Amino acid sequence: MTRVAAVQLAPVVGDLDGNTAKVTAALRDALEQGADVVVVPELATSGYVFESVDEARSAAIRPDDPRFDEWARLLATRPGSVLVVGFAEDAGEVLHNSSAVVTADGVQAVYRKVHLWDREKVFFQPGDARPPVVETEHGRIGTMICFDLEFPEWTRIAALAGADLLATPTNWPLGPRPNDERVAEVQIALATARMNHMAIAFADRSGTERGVEWSEGTGIVGADGWLRDSVGAGTGVAWADLDLPASRDKGQSELVDLFGDRRPDLYGPLLG
Amino acid sequence: MTRVAAVQLAPVVGDLDGNTAKVTAALRDALEQGADVVVVPELATSGYVFESVDEARSAAIRPDDPRFDEWARLLATRPGSVLVVGFAEDAGEVLHNSSAVVTADGVQAVYRKVHLWDREKVFFQPGDARPPVVETEHGRIGTMICFDLEFPEWTRIAALAGADLLATPTNWPLGPRPNDERVAEVQIALATARMNHMAIAFADRSGTERGVEWSEGTGIVGADGWLRDSVGAGTGVAWADLDLPASRDKGQSELVDLFGDRRPDLYGPLLG
Repeated sequence: MTRVAAVQLAPVVGDLDGNTAKVTAALRDALEQGADVVVVPELATSGYVFESVDEARSAAIRPDDPRFDEWARLLATRPGSVLVVGFAEDAGEVLHNSSAVVTADGVQAVYRKVHLWDREKVFFQPGDARPPVVETEHGRIGTMICFDLEFPEWTRIAALAGADLLATPTNWPLGPRPNDERVAEVQIALATARMNHMAIAFADRSGTERGVEWSEGTGIVGADGWLRDSVGAGTGVAWADLDLPASRDKGQSELVDLFGDRRPDLYGPLLG
Repeated sequence: MTRVAAVQLAPVVGDLDGNTAKVTAALRDALEQGADVVVVPELATSGYVFESVDEARSAAIRPDDPRFDEWARLLATRPGSVLVVGFAEDAGEVLHNSSAVVTADGVQAVYRKVHLWDREKVFFQPGDARPPVVETEHGRIGTMICFDLEFPEWTRIAALAGADLLATPTNWPLGPRPNDERVAEVQIALATARMNHMAIAFADRSGTERGVEWSEGTGIVGADGWLRDSVGAGTGVAWADLDLPASRDKGQSELVDLFGDRRPDLYGPLLG
Protein backbone atom coordinates (compact mmCIF):
# COMPACT_ATOMS: atom_id res chain seq x y z
CA MET A 1 0.00 0.00 0.00
CA THR A 2 1.03 3.57 -0.65
CA ARG A 3 0.40 6.21 1.97
CA VAL A 4 -0.73 9.35 0.17
CA ALA A 5 -0.85 12.78 1.80
CA ALA A 6 -2.61 15.77 0.23
CA VAL A 7 -1.58 18.91 2.05
CA GLN A 8 -3.71 22.05 2.34
CA LEU A 9 -1.43 25.05 2.79
CA ALA A 10 -1.93 28.80 3.05
CA PRO A 11 0.76 30.42 0.88
CA VAL A 12 1.29 34.18 0.92
CA VAL A 13 1.42 35.87 -2.46
CA GLY A 14 4.94 36.84 -3.46
CA ASP A 15 6.62 35.42 -0.34
CA LEU A 16 8.85 32.89 -2.08
CA ASP A 17 11.05 32.15 0.92
CA GLY A 18 8.21 31.92 3.43
CA ASN A 19 6.16 29.70 1.11
CA THR A 20 9.15 27.47 0.41
CA ALA A 21 9.61 27.03 4.16
CA LYS A 22 5.95 26.02 4.46
CA VAL A 23 6.33 23.40 1.74
CA THR A 24 9.51 22.09 3.33
CA ALA A 25 7.90 21.84 6.76
CA ALA A 26 4.81 20.14 5.35
CA LEU A 27 6.94 17.65 3.43
CA ARG A 28 9.07 16.88 6.49
CA ASP A 29 6.00 16.38 8.68
CA ALA A 30 4.27 14.16 6.14
CA LEU A 31 7.34 11.98 5.62
CA GLU A 32 7.74 11.62 9.36
CA GLN A 33 4.15 10.40 9.49
CA GLY A 34 4.87 7.77 6.87
CA ALA A 35 3.79 9.48 3.67
CA ASP A 36 5.01 7.90 0.45
CA VAL A 37 3.47 10.45 -1.89
CA VAL A 38 2.99 14.07 -0.82
CA VAL A 39 0.97 16.53 -2.89
CA VAL A 40 0.96 20.27 -2.15
CA PRO A 41 -1.10 23.04 -3.82
CA GLU A 42 -0.83 24.84 -7.12
CA LEU A 43 1.59 27.77 -7.02
CA ALA A 44 2.52 26.74 -3.48
CA THR A 45 5.80 28.62 -3.60
CA SER A 46 4.48 31.84 -5.12
CA GLY A 47 0.88 32.44 -4.06
CA TYR A 48 -1.83 33.07 -6.63
CA VAL A 49 -3.50 36.50 -6.80
CA PHE A 50 -0.74 38.45 -8.52
CA GLU A 51 -1.06 42.14 -9.26
CA SER A 52 1.43 42.17 -12.10
CA VAL A 53 3.61 39.98 -14.26
CA ASP A 54 6.61 41.44 -12.45
CA GLU A 55 5.24 40.28 -9.14
CA ALA A 56 4.64 36.78 -10.53
CA ARG A 57 8.15 36.74 -11.99
CA SER A 58 9.69 37.74 -8.67
CA ALA A 59 8.24 34.57 -7.13
CA ALA A 60 9.04 32.26 -10.07
CA ILE A 61 11.77 29.62 -9.97
CA ARG A 62 13.43 27.30 -12.47
CA PRO A 63 13.26 23.50 -12.24
CA ASP A 64 16.99 23.50 -11.45
CA ASP A 65 16.42 25.77 -8.45
CA PRO A 66 18.21 24.58 -5.28
CA ARG A 67 14.85 24.38 -3.51
CA PHE A 68 14.11 21.20 -5.46
CA ASP A 69 17.44 19.76 -4.33
CA GLU A 70 16.54 20.51 -0.73
CA TRP A 71 13.22 18.65 -1.14
CA ALA A 72 15.02 15.77 -2.86
CA ARG A 73 17.35 15.46 0.16
CA LEU A 74 14.33 15.34 2.44
CA LEU A 75 12.71 12.69 0.23
CA ALA A 76 15.88 10.61 0.53
CA THR A 77 15.04 10.16 4.21
CA ARG A 78 12.09 7.97 3.17
CA PRO A 79 13.12 5.65 0.32
CA GLY A 80 10.81 5.69 -2.68
CA SER A 81 8.90 8.76 -1.57
CA VAL A 82 7.59 11.35 -4.03
CA LEU A 83 6.64 15.03 -3.83
CA VAL A 84 4.32 16.74 -6.29
CA VAL A 85 4.49 20.51 -5.89
CA GLY A 86 2.94 23.40 -7.78
CA PHE A 87 5.19 26.36 -8.53
CA ALA A 88 5.48 29.46 -10.72
CA GLU A 89 8.06 28.44 -13.31
CA ASP A 90 10.58 30.88 -14.70
CA ALA A 91 11.06 29.74 -18.30
CA GLY A 92 13.07 32.71 -19.44
CA GLU A 93 10.89 34.88 -21.68
CA VAL A 94 7.70 33.51 -20.18
CA LEU A 95 6.30 32.10 -16.96
CA HIS A 96 4.36 28.85 -16.57
CA ASN A 97 1.98 27.59 -13.90
CA SER A 98 3.76 24.28 -13.35
CA SER A 99 3.91 21.22 -11.18
CA ALA A 100 7.00 19.11 -10.52
CA VAL A 101 7.28 15.44 -9.64
CA VAL A 102 10.28 15.15 -7.33
CA THR A 103 12.04 12.10 -5.87
CA ALA A 104 15.29 11.64 -3.96
CA ASP A 105 16.95 11.68 -7.38
CA GLY A 106 15.63 15.18 -8.10
CA VAL A 107 12.97 16.54 -10.44
CA GLN A 108 11.58 13.69 -12.56
CA ALA A 109 9.07 15.67 -14.60
CA VAL A 110 7.67 19.17 -14.94
CA TYR A 111 4.13 19.73 -16.22
CA ARG A 112 3.04 23.13 -17.47
CA LYS A 113 -0.66 23.84 -16.96
CA VAL A 114 -2.43 23.72 -20.30
CA HIS A 115 -5.89 24.96 -19.30
CA LEU A 116 -5.18 28.29 -17.65
CA TRP A 117 -8.10 29.69 -15.69
CA ASP A 118 -9.24 33.29 -15.93
CA ARG A 119 -6.56 35.85 -15.06
CA GLU A 120 -3.85 33.21 -14.97
CA LYS A 121 -3.79 33.99 -18.70
CA VAL A 122 -2.44 37.43 -17.87
CA PHE A 123 0.59 36.06 -16.04
CA PHE A 124 1.34 32.66 -17.52
CA GLN A 125 1.92 31.02 -20.87
CA PRO A 126 -0.08 27.80 -21.30
CA GLY A 127 1.82 24.56 -21.65
CA ASP A 128 1.76 22.62 -24.89
CA ALA A 129 2.45 19.08 -23.69
CA ARG A 130 0.32 16.33 -22.22
CA PRO A 131 0.45 15.47 -18.53
CA PRO A 132 3.49 13.34 -17.67
CA VAL A 133 3.13 9.95 -16.01
CA VAL A 134 6.14 9.07 -13.87
CA GLU A 135 6.98 5.47 -13.04
CA THR A 136 7.87 5.30 -9.34
CA GLU A 137 8.39 2.58 -6.77
CA HIS A 138 4.81 3.19 -5.66
CA GLY A 139 3.19 3.14 -9.07
CA ARG A 140 2.61 5.49 -11.95
CA ILE A 141 2.02 9.05 -10.88
CA GLY A 142 0.49 11.55 -13.28
CA THR A 143 0.07 15.23 -12.60
CA MET A 144 -2.01 18.11 -13.87
CA ILE A 145 -3.19 21.34 -12.26
CA CYS A 146 -6.54 22.65 -11.01
CA PHE A 147 -8.74 23.70 -13.99
CA ASP A 148 -7.10 20.98 -16.12
CA LEU A 149 -9.12 18.49 -14.07
CA GLU A 150 -12.35 19.94 -15.47
CA PHE A 151 -11.51 18.91 -19.03
CA PRO A 152 -12.57 15.30 -19.34
CA GLU A 153 -10.35 14.80 -22.38
CA TRP A 154 -7.33 15.73 -20.29
CA THR A 155 -8.02 13.42 -17.40
CA ARG A 156 -8.83 10.62 -19.84
CA ILE A 157 -5.48 11.19 -21.55
CA ALA A 158 -3.68 10.84 -18.22
CA ALA A 159 -5.60 7.66 -17.42
CA LEU A 160 -4.93 6.18 -20.87
CA ALA A 161 -1.26 7.05 -20.42
CA GLY A 162 -1.31 4.76 -17.40
CA ALA A 163 -1.60 7.03 -14.36
CA ASP A 164 -2.50 5.07 -11.23
CA LEU A 165 -2.70 8.26 -9.19
CA LEU A 166 -3.35 11.71 -10.55
CA ALA A 167 -1.59 14.16 -8.24
CA THR A 168 -3.37 17.48 -8.69
CA PRO A 169 -2.15 20.70 -7.11
CA THR A 170 -5.07 23.17 -7.11
CA ASN A 171 -6.20 26.60 -5.99
CA TRP A 172 -9.99 26.48 -6.16
CA PRO A 173 -11.55 29.91 -5.58
CA LEU A 174 -14.69 29.61 -3.48
CA GLY A 175 -17.86 29.71 -5.57
CA PRO A 176 -21.54 29.63 -4.64
CA ARG A 177 -23.09 26.24 -4.00
CA PRO A 178 -26.32 24.90 -2.52
CA ASN A 179 -26.33 23.89 1.15
CA ASP A 180 -25.07 20.38 1.79
CA GLU A 181 -23.40 20.16 -1.60
CA ARG A 182 -19.73 19.36 -2.04
CA VAL A 183 -17.31 21.75 -3.67
CA ALA A 184 -18.14 21.38 -7.37
CA GLU A 185 -14.54 20.66 -8.32
CA VAL A 186 -14.39 17.88 -5.73
CA GLN A 187 -17.50 16.36 -7.30
CA ILE A 188 -15.73 16.44 -10.65
CA ALA A 189 -12.68 14.75 -9.11
CA LEU A 190 -14.84 11.96 -7.69
CA ALA A 191 -16.63 11.34 -10.98
CA THR A 192 -13.35 11.47 -12.89
CA ALA A 193 -11.78 8.90 -10.59
CA ARG A 194 -14.69 6.55 -11.08
CA MET A 195 -14.99 6.95 -14.85
CA ASN A 196 -11.28 6.24 -15.26
CA HIS A 197 -10.69 3.89 -12.31
CA MET A 198 -7.81 6.13 -11.29
CA ALA A 199 -7.08 7.52 -7.82
CA ILE A 200 -6.82 11.31 -7.51
CA ALA A 201 -5.16 13.34 -4.77
CA PHE A 202 -6.03 17.05 -4.91
CA ALA A 203 -4.22 19.57 -2.74
CA ASP A 204 -6.10 22.86 -2.45
CA ARG A 205 -5.14 25.97 -0.54
CA SER A 206 -6.64 27.93 2.33
CA GLY A 207 -6.22 31.49 3.51
CA THR A 208 -7.85 34.58 2.00
CA GLU A 209 -5.60 36.32 -0.55
CA ARG A 210 -6.35 39.84 -1.76
CA GLY A 211 -10.04 39.28 -1.19
CA VAL A 212 -10.17 35.83 -2.83
CA GLU A 213 -11.46 33.00 -0.64
CA TRP A 214 -10.67 29.37 -1.39
CA SER A 215 -12.74 26.22 -1.39
CA GLU A 216 -10.39 24.38 0.97
CA GLY A 217 -11.35 21.26 -0.96
CA THR A 218 -8.22 19.14 -0.38
CA GLY A 219 -8.92 15.42 -0.45
CA ILE A 220 -8.10 11.99 -1.81
CA VAL A 221 -10.44 9.78 -3.86
CA GLY A 222 -9.80 6.10 -4.56
CA ALA A 223 -9.99 4.51 -8.01
CA ASP A 224 -13.50 3.37 -7.05
CA GLY A 225 -14.62 6.99 -6.96
CA TRP A 226 -15.28 7.26 -3.24
CA LEU A 227 -13.68 9.97 -1.14
CA ARG A 228 -11.19 8.58 1.39
CA ASP A 229 -10.34 11.70 3.32
CA SER A 230 -10.62 15.47 3.13
CA VAL A 231 -9.30 18.43 5.11
CA GLY A 232 -12.07 21.02 5.37
CA ALA A 233 -11.42 24.49 6.76
CA GLY A 234 -7.91 25.70 7.51
CA THR A 235 -4.60 24.04 6.84
CA GLY A 236 -4.22 20.29 7.28
CA VAL A 237 -3.52 16.98 5.59
CA ALA A 238 -5.81 14.39 3.96
CA TRP A 239 -4.50 10.83 4.22
CA ALA A 240 -5.22 7.61 2.36
CA ASP A 241 -3.58 4.22 2.04
CA LEU A 242 -4.05 3.20 -1.57
CA ASP A 243 -3.07 0.20 -3.68
CA LEU A 244 -1.95 2.30 -6.62
CA PRO A 245 -1.18 -0.45 -9.19
CA ALA A 246 -4.72 -1.76 -8.63
CA SER A 247 -5.93 1.27 -10.58
CA ARG A 248 -4.76 -0.55 -13.72
CA ASP A 249 -7.52 -3.13 -13.54
CA LYS A 250 -10.29 -1.43 -15.48
CA GLY A 251 -12.48 -4.54 -15.41
CA GLN A 252 -15.63 -4.44 -13.33
CA SER A 253 -17.03 -7.83 -14.27
CA GLU A 254 -16.33 -10.52 -16.85
CA LEU A 255 -18.14 -8.40 -19.43
CA VAL A 256 -17.41 -4.85 -18.28
CA ASP A 257 -14.13 -3.01 -18.81
CA LEU A 258 -14.00 0.78 -18.52
CA PHE A 259 -11.29 1.02 -21.16
CA GLY A 260 -12.11 -2.06 -23.24
CA ASP A 261 -15.68 -0.80 -23.62
CA ARG A 262 -14.52 2.51 -25.09
CA ARG A 263 -15.29 3.12 -28.77
CA PRO A 264 -12.36 5.21 -30.04
CA ASP A 265 -13.47 4.45 -33.60
CA LEU A 266 -16.43 6.73 -32.87
CA TYR A 267 -14.69 9.37 -30.73
CA GLY A 268 -11.76 10.63 -32.74
CA PRO A 269 -12.96 13.13 -35.31
CA LEU A 270 -15.27 15.21 -33.15
CA LEU A 271 -12.71 15.61 -30.42
CA GLY A 272 -9.82 16.38 -32.75
CA MET B 1 -38.62 28.06 -19.50
CA THR B 2 -39.00 24.38 -20.28
CA ARG B 3 -40.69 22.10 -17.77
CA VAL B 4 -38.75 18.85 -17.73
CA ALA B 5 -40.08 15.64 -16.17
CA ALA B 6 -37.90 12.60 -15.53
CA VAL B 7 -40.12 9.64 -14.73
CA GLN B 8 -39.07 6.69 -12.57
CA LEU B 9 -41.09 3.64 -13.62
CA ALA B 10 -41.15 -0.04 -12.62
CA PRO B 11 -41.38 -2.04 -15.86
CA VAL B 12 -41.96 -5.80 -15.78
CA VAL B 13 -39.60 -7.89 -17.88
CA GLY B 14 -41.24 -9.17 -21.05
CA ASP B 15 -44.59 -7.46 -20.45
CA LEU B 16 -44.64 -5.29 -23.55
CA ASP B 17 -48.30 -4.32 -23.33
CA GLY B 18 -48.29 -3.64 -19.60
CA ASN B 19 -45.09 -1.60 -19.85
CA THR B 20 -46.43 0.35 -22.81
CA ALA B 21 -49.52 1.21 -20.77
CA LYS B 22 -47.28 2.45 -17.94
CA VAL B 23 -45.33 4.70 -20.30
CA THR B 24 -48.57 6.02 -21.82
CA ALA B 25 -50.07 6.76 -18.40
CA ALA B 26 -46.86 8.44 -17.21
CA LEU B 27 -46.71 10.56 -20.36
CA ARG B 28 -50.36 11.59 -20.05
CA ASP B 29 -49.96 12.51 -16.39
CA ALA B 30 -46.78 14.49 -17.00
CA LEU B 31 -48.31 16.43 -19.91
CA GLU B 32 -51.37 17.22 -17.81
CA GLN B 33 -49.01 18.63 -15.18
CA GLY B 34 -47.39 20.87 -17.74
CA ALA B 35 -44.38 18.87 -18.81
CA ASP B 36 -42.69 20.01 -22.02
CA VAL B 37 -40.05 17.28 -22.09
CA VAL B 38 -40.73 13.84 -20.59
CA VAL B 39 -37.97 11.27 -20.13
CA VAL B 40 -38.72 7.65 -19.20
CA PRO B 41 -36.25 4.82 -18.42
CA GLU B 42 -34.04 2.62 -20.56
CA LEU B 43 -35.88 -0.42 -21.97
CA ALA B 44 -39.08 1.00 -20.46
CA THR B 45 -41.25 -1.07 -22.78
CA SER B 46 -39.41 -4.37 -22.38
CA GLY B 47 -37.88 -4.66 -18.92
CA TYR B 48 -34.19 -5.41 -18.50
CA VAL B 49 -33.13 -8.74 -16.96
CA PHE B 50 -33.78 -11.04 -19.92
CA GLU B 51 -33.19 -14.78 -19.71
CA SER B 52 -32.73 -15.29 -23.43
CA VAL B 53 -32.43 -13.47 -26.72
CA ASP B 54 -35.85 -14.88 -27.63
CA GLU B 55 -37.35 -13.26 -24.58
CA ALA B 56 -35.75 -9.92 -25.43
CA ARG B 57 -36.96 -10.25 -29.03
CA SER B 58 -40.52 -10.93 -27.90
CA ALA B 59 -40.54 -7.53 -26.19
CA ALA B 60 -38.75 -5.64 -28.98
CA ILE B 61 -40.49 -3.15 -31.28
CA ARG B 62 -39.59 -1.24 -34.41
CA PRO B 63 -39.45 2.56 -34.58
CA ASP B 64 -42.52 2.43 -36.87
CA ASP B 65 -44.50 0.57 -34.21
CA PRO B 66 -48.00 2.05 -33.64
CA ARG B 67 -47.08 2.65 -29.99
CA PHE B 68 -44.97 5.60 -31.09
CA ASP B 69 -47.96 6.97 -33.03
CA GLU B 70 -50.08 6.70 -29.90
CA TRP B 71 -47.49 8.67 -27.93
CA ALA B 72 -47.25 11.23 -30.74
CA ARG B 73 -51.02 11.78 -30.53
CA LEU B 74 -50.72 12.35 -26.81
CA LEU B 75 -47.85 14.78 -27.35
CA ALA B 76 -50.09 16.70 -29.78
CA THR B 77 -52.25 17.65 -26.79
CA ARG B 78 -49.40 19.86 -25.54
CA PRO B 79 -47.83 21.76 -28.42
CA GLY B 80 -44.08 21.49 -28.67
CA SER B 81 -43.78 18.68 -26.14
CA VAL B 82 -41.22 15.90 -26.46
CA LEU B 83 -40.93 12.33 -25.17
CA VAL B 84 -37.64 10.46 -24.83
CA VAL B 85 -38.26 6.78 -24.26
CA GLY B 86 -35.96 3.76 -23.98
CA PHE B 87 -37.07 0.60 -25.81
CA ALA B 88 -35.77 -2.73 -27.08
CA GLU B 89 -35.47 -2.18 -30.82
CA ASP B 90 -36.23 -4.89 -33.33
CA ALA B 91 -33.81 -4.20 -36.17
CA GLY B 92 -34.43 -7.41 -38.07
CA GLU B 93 -31.43 -9.70 -37.61
CA VAL B 94 -30.37 -7.98 -34.41
CA LEU B 95 -31.78 -6.11 -31.44
CA HIS B 96 -30.61 -2.75 -30.11
CA ASN B 97 -30.97 -1.07 -26.76
CA SER B 98 -32.39 2.19 -28.12
CA SER B 99 -33.95 5.47 -27.18
CA ALA B 100 -36.37 7.47 -29.33
CA VAL B 101 -37.03 11.20 -29.39
CA VAL B 102 -40.73 11.59 -30.18
CA THR B 103 -42.84 14.69 -30.90
CA ALA B 104 -46.37 15.21 -32.14
CA ASP B 105 -44.91 14.66 -35.62
CA GLY B 106 -43.70 11.17 -34.68
CA VAL B 107 -40.25 9.69 -34.05
CA GLN B 108 -37.61 12.34 -34.72
CA ALA B 109 -34.51 10.28 -33.94
CA VAL B 110 -33.51 6.85 -32.71
CA TYR B 111 -30.25 6.34 -30.82
CA ARG B 112 -28.78 2.87 -30.41
CA LYS B 113 -26.74 2.44 -27.21
CA VAL B 114 -23.07 2.26 -28.09
CA HIS B 115 -21.59 1.34 -24.70
CA LEU B 116 -23.48 -1.81 -23.76
CA TRP B 117 -23.08 -2.81 -20.13
CA ASP B 118 -22.34 -6.32 -18.99
CA ARG B 119 -24.90 -8.92 -20.13
CA GLU B 120 -26.61 -6.44 -22.42
CA LYS B 121 -23.90 -7.66 -24.80
CA VAL B 122 -25.61 -11.05 -24.85
CA PHE B 123 -28.89 -9.63 -26.10
CA PHE B 124 -28.11 -6.48 -28.03
CA GLN B 125 -25.90 -5.28 -30.85
CA PRO B 126 -24.09 -2.02 -30.01
CA GLY B 127 -24.93 1.03 -32.07
CA ASP B 128 -22.34 2.58 -34.35
CA ALA B 129 -23.51 6.19 -34.49
CA ARG B 130 -23.05 9.20 -32.27
CA PRO B 131 -25.85 10.50 -30.07
CA PRO B 132 -28.39 12.55 -32.04
CA VAL B 133 -29.23 16.11 -31.09
CA VAL B 134 -32.78 17.08 -32.06
CA GLU B 135 -33.76 20.70 -32.57
CA THR B 136 -37.11 21.25 -30.84
CA GLU B 137 -39.23 24.24 -29.89
CA HIS B 138 -37.73 23.96 -26.40
CA GLY B 139 -34.11 23.70 -27.43
CA ARG B 140 -31.69 21.05 -28.59
CA ILE B 141 -32.29 17.69 -27.02
CA GLY B 142 -29.62 15.01 -27.15
CA THR B 143 -30.03 11.46 -25.96
CA MET B 144 -27.86 8.58 -24.86
CA ILE B 145 -28.44 5.62 -22.56
CA CYS B 146 -27.24 4.66 -19.08
CA PHE B 147 -23.61 3.38 -19.25
CA ASP B 148 -22.97 5.74 -22.20
CA LEU B 149 -23.04 8.55 -19.64
CA GLU B 150 -19.91 7.12 -17.96
CA PHE B 151 -17.77 7.68 -21.04
CA PRO B 152 -16.64 11.28 -20.88
CA GLU B 153 -15.80 11.27 -24.59
CA TRP B 154 -19.41 10.47 -25.37
CA THR B 155 -21.01 13.14 -23.25
CA ARG B 156 -18.49 15.67 -24.57
CA ILE B 157 -19.45 14.71 -28.12
CA ALA B 158 -23.12 15.35 -27.33
CA ALA B 159 -22.28 18.70 -25.76
CA LEU B 160 -20.05 19.73 -28.68
CA ALA B 161 -22.86 18.73 -31.04
CA GLY B 162 -24.96 21.34 -29.29
CA ALA B 163 -27.17 19.47 -26.83
CA ASP B 164 -28.81 21.84 -24.35
CA LEU B 165 -30.38 18.94 -22.49
CA LEU B 166 -29.12 15.37 -22.47
CA ALA B 167 -32.14 13.11 -21.99
CA THR B 168 -30.81 9.89 -20.56
CA PRO B 169 -32.96 6.81 -20.06
CA THR B 170 -31.16 4.53 -17.58
CA ASN B 171 -31.44 1.29 -15.60
CA TRP B 172 -28.81 1.61 -12.88
CA PRO B 173 -28.39 -1.63 -10.92
CA LEU B 174 -27.87 -0.91 -7.23
CA GLY B 175 -24.22 -1.09 -6.21
CA PRO B 176 -22.47 -0.69 -2.87
CA ARG B 177 -21.75 2.82 -1.68
CA PRO B 178 -20.65 4.50 1.53
CA ASN B 179 -23.33 5.93 3.79
CA ASP B 180 -24.45 9.43 2.87
CA GLU B 181 -23.01 9.15 -0.63
CA ARG B 182 -25.05 9.71 -3.76
CA VAL B 183 -25.57 7.01 -6.35
CA ALA B 184 -22.23 6.98 -8.18
CA GLU B 185 -23.86 7.39 -11.58
CA VAL B 186 -25.74 10.45 -10.33
CA GLN B 187 -22.45 11.92 -9.21
CA ILE B 188 -21.11 11.36 -12.72
CA ALA B 189 -24.19 13.05 -14.20
CA LEU B 190 -23.67 16.11 -11.98
CA ALA B 191 -20.00 16.42 -12.86
CA THR B 192 -20.73 15.89 -16.55
CA ALA B 193 -23.37 18.64 -16.53
CA ARG B 194 -20.94 21.06 -14.95
CA MET B 195 -17.95 20.22 -17.15
CA ASN B 196 -20.05 20.69 -20.27
CA HIS B 197 -22.53 23.34 -19.05
CA MET B 198 -25.32 21.08 -20.29
CA ALA B 199 -28.47 20.07 -18.41
CA ILE B 200 -29.08 16.34 -17.94
CA ALA B 201 -32.35 14.54 -17.15
CA PHE B 202 -31.86 10.91 -16.15
CA ALA B 203 -34.82 8.56 -15.79
CA ASP B 204 -33.95 5.44 -13.80
CA ARG B 205 -36.21 2.52 -12.91
CA SER B 206 -37.46 1.02 -9.66
CA GLY B 207 -38.81 -2.41 -8.79
CA THR B 208 -36.76 -5.56 -8.19
CA GLU B 209 -36.41 -7.70 -11.32
CA ARG B 210 -35.18 -11.30 -11.12
CA GLY B 211 -33.15 -10.46 -8.06
CA VAL B 212 -31.68 -7.24 -9.44
CA GLU B 213 -32.31 -4.11 -7.40
CA TRP B 214 -32.07 -0.65 -8.92
CA SER B 215 -30.54 2.59 -7.75
CA GLU B 216 -33.76 4.58 -8.18
CA GLY B 217 -31.52 7.49 -9.10
CA THR B 218 -33.91 9.49 -11.31
CA GLY B 219 -33.18 13.21 -11.28
CA ILE B 220 -32.53 16.40 -13.19
CA VAL B 221 -29.35 18.48 -13.04
CA GLY B 222 -29.04 22.01 -14.42
CA ALA B 223 -26.25 23.17 -16.71
CA ASP B 224 -24.60 24.63 -13.61
CA GLY B 225 -24.09 21.11 -12.26
CA TRP B 226 -26.46 21.33 -9.31
CA LEU B 227 -29.24 18.79 -8.81
CA ARG B 228 -32.71 20.35 -9.20
CA ASP B 229 -34.89 17.43 -8.20
CA SER B 230 -34.75 13.69 -7.66
CA VAL B 231 -37.26 10.92 -7.01
CA GLY B 232 -35.79 8.54 -4.45
CA ALA B 233 -37.42 5.20 -3.62
CA GLY B 234 -40.36 3.89 -5.64
CA THR B 235 -41.97 5.29 -8.75
CA GLY B 236 -42.34 9.04 -9.19
CA VAL B 237 -41.36 12.09 -11.19
CA ALA B 238 -38.51 14.59 -10.86
CA TRP B 239 -39.39 18.07 -12.10
CA ALA B 240 -37.35 21.07 -13.15
CA ASP B 241 -38.01 24.31 -14.99
CA LEU B 242 -34.93 24.92 -17.11
CA ASP B 243 -33.84 27.60 -19.57
CA LEU B 244 -32.48 25.10 -22.08
CA PRO B 245 -30.92 27.47 -24.67
CA ALA B 246 -28.93 29.04 -21.81
CA SER B 247 -26.84 25.87 -21.82
CA ARG B 248 -25.15 27.23 -24.95
CA ASP B 249 -23.34 29.96 -23.08
CA LYS B 250 -20.13 28.20 -22.08
CA GLY B 251 -18.56 31.40 -20.77
CA GLN B 252 -18.03 31.72 -17.04
CA SER B 253 -16.23 35.05 -17.01
CA GLU B 254 -14.60 37.38 -19.51
CA LEU B 255 -11.58 35.07 -19.60
CA VAL B 256 -13.13 31.63 -18.98
CA ASP B 257 -15.01 29.58 -21.57
CA LEU B 258 -15.52 25.85 -21.02
CA PHE B 259 -15.36 25.15 -24.74
CA GLY B 260 -13.10 27.98 -25.85
CA ASP B 261 -10.52 26.91 -23.28
CA ARG B 262 -10.34 23.38 -24.70
CA ARG B 263 -7.12 22.38 -26.46
CA PRO B 264 -8.22 20.00 -29.23
CA ASP B 265 -4.78 20.39 -30.81
CA LEU B 266 -3.49 18.37 -27.86
CA TYR B 267 -6.39 15.91 -27.44
CA GLY B 268 -6.89 14.29 -30.79
CA PRO B 269 -4.28 11.58 -31.28
CA LEU B 270 -4.48 9.87 -27.89
CA LEU B 271 -8.24 9.65 -27.99
CA GLY B 272 -8.42 8.50 -31.62
